[in-house]
Parts: sequence; structure tokens; C-alpha cells
Amino acid sequence: MSAPSLQPPPAAATRILDRIEALARVSEQPDGLTRIYLSPQHAQANALVGGWMREAGLAVHVDAAGNLVGRREGERPGLPCLMLGSHLDSVRNAGRYDGMLGVLTAIECVAALGPRPLPFAIEVVGFGDEEGVRFQATMLGSRAVAGTFDPALLDLRDAGGTTMREAMAAFGLDPSAVGSAARRREDVLAYVEYHIEQGPVLEAEGLPVGVVTAINGQQRFRIQVDGMAGHSGTVPMRLRQDALAAAAECVLAAERIAAGLPDAVATVGQLAPSPGATNVIPGRAVFSLDVRSPRDADRMRVAAAIVDECRAIATRRRVAIDIAQTHELSSCACAAWLQDQVAAAIAADGHRVLALPSGAGHDAMAMVALTDVAMLFLRCRDGISHHPAEAITAEDAATGARVLQAFIERFEPRA
Amino acid sequence: MSAPSLQPPPAAATRILDRIEALARVSEQPDGLTRIYLSPQHAQANALVGGWMREAGLAVHVDAAGNLVGRREGERPGLPCLMLGSHLDSVRNAGRYDGMLGVLTAIECVAALGPRPLPFAIEVVGFGDEEGVRFQATMLGSRAVAGTFDPALLDLRDAGGTTMREAMAAFGLDPSAVGSAARRREDVLAYVEYHIEQGPVLEAEGLPVGVVTAINGQQRFRIQVDGMAGHSGTVPMRLRQDALAAAAECVLAAERIAAGLPDAVATVGQLAPSPGATNVIPGRAVFSLDVRSPRDADRMRVAAAIVDECRAIATRRRVAIDIAQTHELSSCACAAWLQDQVAAAIAADGHRVLALPSGAGHDAMAMVALTDVAMLFLRCRDGISHHPAEAITAEDAATGARVLQAFIERFEPRA
Repeated sequence: MSAPSLQPPPAAATRILDRIEALARVSEQPDGLTRIYLSPQHAQANALVGGWMREAGLAVHVDAAGNLVGRREGERPGLPCLMLGSHLDSVRNAGRYDGMLGVLTAIECVAALGPRPLPFAIEVVGFGDEEGVRFQATMLGSRAVAGTFDPALLDLRDAGGTTMREAMAAFGLDPSAVGSAARRREDVLAYVEYHIEQGPVLEAEGLPVGVVTAINGQQRFRIQVDGMAGHSGTVPMRLRQDALAAAAECVLAAERIAAGLPDAVATVGQLAPSPGATNVIPGRAVFSLDVRSPRDADRMRVAAAIVDECRAIATRRRVAIDIAQTHELSSCACAAWLQDQVAAAIAADGHRVLALPSGAGHDAMAMVALTDVAMLFLRCRDGISHHPAEAITAEDAATGARVLQAFIERFEPRA
Repeated sequence: MSAPSLQPPPAAATRILDRIEALARVSEQPDGLTRIYLSPQHAQANALVGGWMREAGLAVHVDAAGNLVGRREGERPGLPCLMLGSHLDSVRNAGRYDGMLGVLTAIECVAALGPRPLPFAIEVVGFGDEEGVRFQATMLGSRAVAGTFDPALLDLRDAGGTTMREAMAAFGLDPSAVGSAARRREDVLAYVEYHIEQGPVLEAEGLPVGVVTAINGQQRFRIQVDGMAGHSGTVPMRLRQDALAAAAECVLAAERIAAGLPDAVATVGQLAPSPGATNVIPGRAVFSLDVRSPRDADRMRVAAAIVDECRAIATRRRVAIDIAQTHELSSCACAAWLQDQVAAAIAADGHRVLALPSGAGHDAMAMVALTDVAMLFLRCRDGISHHPAEAITAEDAATGARVLQAFIERFEPRA
């Protein structure tokens, strides 16, 4: 780690952290942060952050998908832009740095640029949906900007039965015009996202920042096991077809198989036995499976091995199994020329340059369909994310802002 | 199995099954059977079954705990009674024979006795609570009759926050008088319960009925595992403290350990990981454990071994574990003299006599504190119970009624 600073954090970091506190209060719950796509809190967040964008000299609008966009022109109006940003939505009971830190720091950096025009425009985007909590489909905001938003998504329903189409209309958007949020390739030079690592690697390496090489590809599955429910006291162990016991074996198989390949991870985050009574053998168990790796071939190999093993477990236990893939995203490589410029900014601030993959998904995965992407990661405490305990230090916030600022000031469009 | 009857089922069986259909419609849900203690449906069931009791010549009252009691005097008023019955409450989304069959068949048998007085009184009881769904404490009705109802139970709350005391008052009962439901030992000769087996043994043996030797003792636990939540993409497998993976190992340990001892069973019926999102490593998992055996020493040995193994799993995986026993009931032996009379009635109807333990708990377990108990089991399809698919044949219903009738007619109080 760099030598500890004995100075108070610079004003920029203080302002960023103060604004994060204010933004975190824009939540559907009083005692924690939950802010989902097209909700009243989404509109409030756009208004609050839009005000800060205007203070920083950006021209602000909300695009056809509900994304907040602030633009600073370059030496002349209409130049292609360097696009910075991240997302303004959250998971349920979220941490306050995931997404928001990148947007608010970018605003701070633009404010600090001063009046001297740059040879390119800058846009700061606060995407309306990255987490996918509301409609179970992720990166809706960045997909719209990248031009890969499938209009069929408008028919997805939230838990209350509201379609995305209805939610957009209620938000004041025209769902039939969502395609107009897409940007033209020639108008965007690059997309660079600054984000907390959400993992433990930078902390373990004693570094405040790192440059991302690639974002893990991922597959998600919904797996349903059907056995036979029965009274917990009357069915001998040898005659049982316990769906939960079968699912438990699958959970352990996923863990074991992923551990066998470097950088691969597999997670069962949801598991629901039914009927779910103390004295009833579960007749059904439904669980989720999430598999990731920075190398697509590894990821597919791990997922296939887990699926095969789940089927073998079901056969051996005489239970039925239904395995449905619900989501697949290829890994996303960060552009070498952009990685080089991010690395140079890290080095210019006096840090060893660590290149690392991203285990989490990010808007950059959608934006790569439009333009070259790169990411700057900031250390977070204990690698915790998607949890209220998510934390960074003020000193690290200042470091991240300085590095992003240095990157912007030295930015050279691809030759 | 006995030779299949080509005759239509006798009128008694038809009436029993018709009444079961009518009673199953007294439910808090339109598309299935759920009837819990002290609910409006409990009052409706008491009114409906009470009417059938009166038709059968019984004098009917609802006791201080909400149990429905019908009495037929013997040769003179006030003689000690042979008590028959079972429970009128159900689990959620229940089968329709569990409990109800025993009450309705006993009524039918009493109706068939004709005017000739017996040298003992008969009472038919429909207990208000056996399943314990509402207050998570079982056999409240039979405990009240047996005189073992602890008034501290009145402070238990249901899922909506209502205390049992409040629920009793709303039902029209005086909670301070619940003790008056207790019967005197000298007024009860025996308690005999007719019930579906809720297991697969009679079906496997090809027999319609069997006599119960003992009811399994049971222990229940609530087990909570606390690990560390984290992002499913960013925490390497080797650094995880996945609470669900630890719980999954515990599920399999319970299954393996119980399978190692004859007649012992162990079940995890509930398991809830949290926060419960596809892309979050579970930081907590809470599960239930239910252990049973007809031999108390075996049951305690299995439970202790599972608990030890769960602790070892937690230690190895660096997660915290909290194991709380929530319920313990010793096994309950059926009285030899009563078993002999039930066996004689089975033999008199032309069946091989099979003696078997009961894996499920029954009101007889509470009633043994008051009087000697016995049970007659009826075959049910595929051993399924606590499930809408619970089923019996009309022929078996007729057989069960004949055997119970024969038992009553030949009943000799203990010498």
C-alpha cells in the first residue's frame, strides 16, 4: 500500500463521499439502499445527480431509456466523446459505492477540468439499470445506449406484474422510442468505467487501484428437482426421493467443480425447497446456478460439467431434474490501447500497475458492442459488495479521482 | 392384499367418504385444504362435524380448548368412556384423510351400534390442534384433554402476531379456563385412534389395516449457519465462506447418518439461504432438522451424531453455526392389552395381523399421559400424506370401519 496520508482527504473526495451519502438516501426503504429501474427513486436520483452534473458544467438530459446523460463539448460542438460513467440503480439492500462511485467521481473530474476545451467531448452517463433487479434482465440502460436493446424486453414483467413498457410510460418515457437512446459508433471514442472492485484482490495486493483486463463471462441457470414429498416420520430413508437432498448434492458438486479450475467460480445463491415444512420431506427444490470465468471456454466447461453432474445425481437419486439456462454473456476484453492509458494514469499517480480480471458484470460488457471499453478498479474493504457493509476509504476515493482525472487529461483517441 | 371386492362399497364407507369431501371444503383456501387451530374454518368444522355427531345420537359440546366432543352414555349415565377420535385441523395444503378419517369413521361406528346400551360410555373427540401449524406447538387439543397443556403456551404468537390467548378469546373460549378441558383418569378407559398410516408399509405388505406398536419419538432443531455474503463473480472459491454450501453438507450428513440405523429417519424440510439472490454468495442459511425413531436411545444417538457432524462441517468451512433444539417428544408405547383387542378385531375381519411402529406423531402421544392408548392404521396410496394426493380406496375405508366397529363391540376394559 502507498504510504498513509496524514493530510485530510482533498475536497474532491469529501464532496464525492458526501454526495454518495445523499444519493444513498434516495431509496425505497428507510433503513437501507434499494433503487430499481424506472421507480420513483430512479427519477429522484436522476434529478439529484443531474443537478450535480449541471453544477459541473454539463448539459444534461434523460435519454429514451431513462439513462441520465451529461455532456461537455470539446473544442467545437458535436465532436465525438469520451464516455465515462456507470449505473445509478442498485441491488436490494445494496452497498452505496457499486455504480454510484463511478458516476459521481466522473462528474467531479469534469468539474475539475476547468474552462480549457479538450480536443474531444466528454459525456458522463448514469445508467438506469445494470443490476436487473426489477425485470430480471440486466444492463438495460447500457444495452439501450449500445443499440442492443431488444424491444421484446418491453414485455418483461416485474414481481408486481407491471410490464417494462408500462413502467417506462409511467416514468414519462415513450417505450416505442427506446431505440433512439442508441448512440452512433462515430460519436463515441471509448467507454471507460471506474468502479469498486467488489472483490478482495486489490486489498490483498495492497494497492488502491488496478486496471481491468477482461470482464468474466457468465451463465445462469434455473434448476428444478422433483422428487416425492412425504411425511418426515413415515417414509424410511431407503424409500425417499428427497428433492432437497438431491439439490444439496448439486450445490456441493458446483462448488467442487468450479474450485478445480483457476479463476472459475460457481454459486448457488437461491434455493427453495417445497412445501417447506419441518415435518415434510421436500418434494421439490428449485435453485439458481451462476457460473463465471474470464475465459469463455473455461466457463462453458465448468457449466457443462456441473450440469452433467446434476443430471447424474438426479438419476442416481431417482428424481426428475429440469435445467434451464436463463442468461449467458460472453467475457468482454478491455481494449489494449485503453488499458495502456489507464495503466499510465495509475503509474503517474505513483502506484504499481496491477492488471486483473473483473469477476462481476459491468455496463462495459454491454458498451463493448458500441465502442472500445476499459475499466479502472478501486479497492473496497474486505472485497464486500452487494451488501450494506460495502466500504472504501476517503484516501482511496481521492486516489481514484486523481487517477481518473489524469486519464481524462492525457486521453488520446485511438490512432 | 385381500381378494378384490366386486360389490359397491357399503353405505357406511360411502357416507364417510362423502363427509370427508364436504369437510375438506372447509378450508381457508379455495383450491386446497388448510384448516388451522382457532380459525373461522375450525369453528365451521366443529359445527359441521357436530351435526353429524348429533345425527349419530351423540351429545355434543365444544370443550374449553376448542375440541369437539360427542358422548354416548353406556348402560347408565356417567360411566367411564372408551374415547375414540383424532384431529380436525390440517397442515397447509393438506390431504383430507389425515385426522378427519378417524373422527368421521368413529361417528359412523357409533351410529351403527344401534340402541342397545354398552357397559361403558363412548366419546368421539375431534381435536382442534394436532399439527401445530398455527402456533408451532403441536397437539394442543389432546394436551388440554390429557391435562398437560402448559398455560405458558397461551403466550405463543402466530405468524400474524396474534397470541393463542387472543385467538381463544376470538373463538369464544375463555383462555383462563383451558385447564377445565382436562379429563379425570377414572373417567376414561382407553384412547383408541384410527388413522391413515401416512407411510408405505401396509401397502408394501398388501394389507388394508395394521395395529400400531409404538409411536416414534422425535426431536426438532433450528440450525443457523453464518458465513460471509459476497458477490458471486468476484470472490475466488478458496476465499469463500458460503453458508448454503455448509448447510448442503449438513443436509447430506443428516441423510447419511439416519440411513445408518434401522427405523431412524432424519429430514431437512426447510432451508432458506439469504440474501437469496442469484448473484450473491449466501451469507446465512437457516434450516430445520427433524429426527425420529421408535427407540428413544436410537433417536438421541442419531440426533447427537448429526449435530456433531454439523459442528465439524462448520469448523472446517470457517462458518459459525447455532443449533437450537425446538421440540422433543419421547416415543409412546401402545398398551399391550389394547393392541391385543385391536389385533383381534383385525383378525376377525379376516386379515393377517401386522404390527408396525408409527413414524408420524399422533394425538395418542399426548393422550398417553391420561390413559392407555392404541392405534389402528389404514393403508394409504403410495404412503403419501401431508399432500393433496393423499388417498385411500373406498374398499379400504369400509374395511377400516368394519374393524373399528368390531373393536368397539368387543371392547373389554382392562381387567
